[in-house]
Amino acid sequence: MKELLRATTEHALQYLDSLQSRPVAPDAEAVANLKSLDIALPREGTAPSEVIQELDEFGRPATMAMAGPRFFGFVIGGSLPAALAANWLVSAWDQNTGLYNSTPATSYIEEIALKWLVDLLGLPSQTAGAFVSGTSVAHLTALAAARHSVLERAGWDVESDGLFGAPPVTVIIGKEAHPTLHKALGIIGLGRKRVLEVPADSQGRMQTAKIPRVSGPAIICVQAGNVNTGSFDSIGEACEIAKEIGAWVHVDGAFGLWANVAPTRAHLVAGVEQADSWATDGHKWLNVPYDSGIAFVRDANALRASMSISAEYLPHASEHRNPSD
Amino acid sequence: MKELLRATTEHALQYLDSLQSRPVAPDAEAVANLKSLDIALPREGTAPSEVIQELDEFGRPATMAMAGPRFFGFVIGGSLPAALAANWLVSAWDQNTGLYNSTPATSYIEEIALKWLVDLLGLPSQTAGAFVSGTSVAHLTALAAARHSVLERAGWDVESDGLFGAPPVTVIIGKEAHPTLHKALGIIGLGRKRVLEVPADSQGRMQTAKIPRVSGPAIICVQAGNVNTGSFDSIGEACEIAKEIGAWVHVDGAFGLWANVAPTRAHLVAGVEQADSWATDGHKWLNVPYDSGIAFVRDANALRASMSISAEYLPHASEHRNPSD
Repeated sequence: MKELLRATTEHALQYLDSLQSRPVAPDAEAVANLKSLDIALPREGTAPSEVIQELDEFGRPATMAMAGPRFFGFVIGGSLPAALAANWLVSAWDQNTGLYNSTPATSYIEEIALKWLVDLLGLPSQTAGAFVSGTSVAHLTALAAARHSVLERAGWDVESDGLFGAPPVTVIIGKEAHPTLHKALGIIGLGRKRVLEVPADSQGRMQTAKIPRVSGPAIICVQAGNVNTGSFDSIGEACEIAKEIGAWVHVDGAFGLWANVAPTRAHLVAGVEQADSWATDGHKWLNVPYDSGIAFVRDANALRASMSISAEYLPHASEHRNPSD
Repeated sequence: MKELLRATTEHALQYLDSLQSRPVAPDAEAVANLKSLDIALPREGTAPSEVIQELDEFGRPATMAMAGPRFFGFVIGGSLPAALAANWLVSAWDQNTGLYNSTPATSYIEEIALKWLVDLLGLPSQTAGAFVSGTSVAHLTALAAARHSVLERAGWDVESDGLFGAPPVTVIIGKEAHPTLHKALGIIGLGRKRVLEVPADSQGRMQTAKIPRVSGPAIICVQAGNVNTGSFDSIGEACEIAKEIGAWVHVDGAFGLWANVAPTRAHLVAGVEQADSWATDGHKWLNVPYDSGIAFVRDANALRASMSISAEYLPHASEHRNPSD
């Protein structure tokens, strides 16, 4: 194990070093050579050092240099040294962090990190949160809490009884909402296209004044950062309208929620603290390794109601937050 | 970076070494000392080496020794050296593996790994799959594909139009199904309790003969491995009944699907290859680091229909599988 992990460290360091000068994209030959790895499932074990050697020999040249400072595609950030090192250390700890009582160290560190993030992002202090795989799953998580809350107010227990026969939930969304939001709506059964689309202006901003004044259970999804233009919906205005009609406001803040951290940019998300849920991630502006989504929900009970489970063999009771809730 | 990652490697090696002799559970003092980490969000950066030092000093003693050979709680496995080393290496690569064209190396390796797993588990060769965070999300993924398929046959596009007004889907489930399955059903809007429960025998096995012969869209969830007793539902029999009534069969194979790999145990999952979807993970029997769920779906189109998205700025077209599909 010692030799293996030390050798892997040197492979990793060489890789990180190479990012300063290697071509950002892999060349066609490197991609073609990947087929060397495409063998039938070996019936005998392979020495661990050989596994790492093969990944380094055939995998490495075919990577995209996303971890380096010269990759500018999409909205992708590399890792800070502290984040990568922490990732390695906790991988060695290998804590299945679902319940506080089983894994106090990592559960406690999650609690602190969430508290810091709530503070940093200027969200209401009682906001609950969850670390998930990316903003897509953060949408899913937050929207499940939203669905719970708006249907509970309508007298319907959606977790127990599902959506067949439930009071219809109106989903209001900007014309240029990100596809991951539509996907999350589809997965939780609200429908990707069963939405009221609010027209966008020339910058892709939702024309907030045109938000329909609907009655009944409703969720308004606003965008903090249009991925094509960088523009921001008027979140504060949307929240005012939501209050009028009793709707839940969910903020897609994949990259834009972080504007609130920069004094010169905070005006872009003015009023964001009035929303009910927020989705973002740590692998863009915080430069932690892939993947790291974060869902925030103002009403901790709504998050817990939509996500918590218990089982006979699980020691669930704790005065601390259980990460799996 | 060099010094940091090398020092982290030594911290990790010391930790792994200690697993042979340290108490499995953290003592109360170590847990109490975690509060040293609970400071207000620092306004200035902390040196990376100090971050790792603090995690090692306060986090490590409060971990549960799940990574070692003397932890027997729940169904939790430690990591093999090759798996941990590979985890470190690919963390350094930091590939946002959503699309083949952006990250060919890791996308290709996923393809191979899925092919190997399908082969190893004895699933139909055309089976599609996805790596997700755990068996819970594997259930969610597979059941979303199931929902798509049974509703498509009933003439309903659930991704586009959601579940309001859709033909009702009957969910048939064993009395002792795992709570994560109920949770996944809740999230996708089918309801945690809106299920037909098939009675269990004294070992917690679904009494297959009592599966109700319903008509219309239906999903039958069977269990390969009851977490409390280790017993297996009669999967082949359930699949025969499913064929009669045109139902989709989903297998909760969190730990039990691997029985098919052992010649002396394969009889426990006889007929499993007749099912339509399977959920399992790699962090139990394959001993890869947390977390690593795997969803398998026989009909690749159903999986793609329920999960795939596109966006204007994403280069989606590829002859290869896109991991995000």
